[in-house]
Amino acid sequence: MIAQTPKPPYYAVIFTSERTDGDNGYLEMAEEMEKLVSRQQGFLGFESARESLGITVSYWENLESIRQWKENAEHTEAREKGRNIWYKSFKVRIAKVERDYGFENDE
Amino acid sequence: MIAQTPKPPYYAVIFTSERTDGDNGYLEMAEEMEKLVSRQQGFLGFESARESLGITVSYWENLESIRQWKENAEHTEAREKGRNIWYKSFKVRIAKVERDYGFENDE
Repeated sequence: MIAQTPKPPYYAVIFTSERTDGDNGYLEMAEEMEKLVSRQQGFLGFESARESLGITVSYWENLESIRQWKENAEHTEAREKGRNIWYKSFKVRIAKVERDYGFENDE
Repeated sequence: MIAQTPKPPYYAVIFTSERTDGDNGYLEMAEEMEKLVSRQQGFLGFESARESLGITVSYWENLESIRQWKENAEHTEAREKGRNIWYKSFKVRIAKVERDYGFENDE
């Protein structure tokens, strides 16, 4: 689903990753994080897709809400496991959305 | 592959889409656009993944390089076909990357 975000400006966290082989508890954690993040102050939505590369973009009201999510204890534990178990490599980019537009085919 | 981008600031164009059924010439166009975009002034790289949702993030030096790519004639034709044939819906977000960090497991 394309995230329903408000009028810019707002923030995007672009998380791009390459996974290690095997699940190793990843799916369960990912579902848990989805539940948790949706209750975070300032969270606006997220979009996710994975082929060989995984891309997850989460949207936030401001930098403060991103910082608070980063400090969430369960999320911090998950991020640690990410480095130790689930990810071969990843990159996080914090970006301010300045403009957006969309298209919807109503046919 | 995770895009090798320079030190921020730079720009990200987050393109999120839902496809219509069937290929209808999409793959051929996508390959053509990949070749074209890589020769654009100010293009820094891109990342792409699709499940039910497709996410392509392209990275750019500045807003001017994004504008020039938008005005490229073949790209304009492809975008038109996108609206008419390939996409049920999409959203484009233009964002300024302010900060980034990464992780690489060297084991």
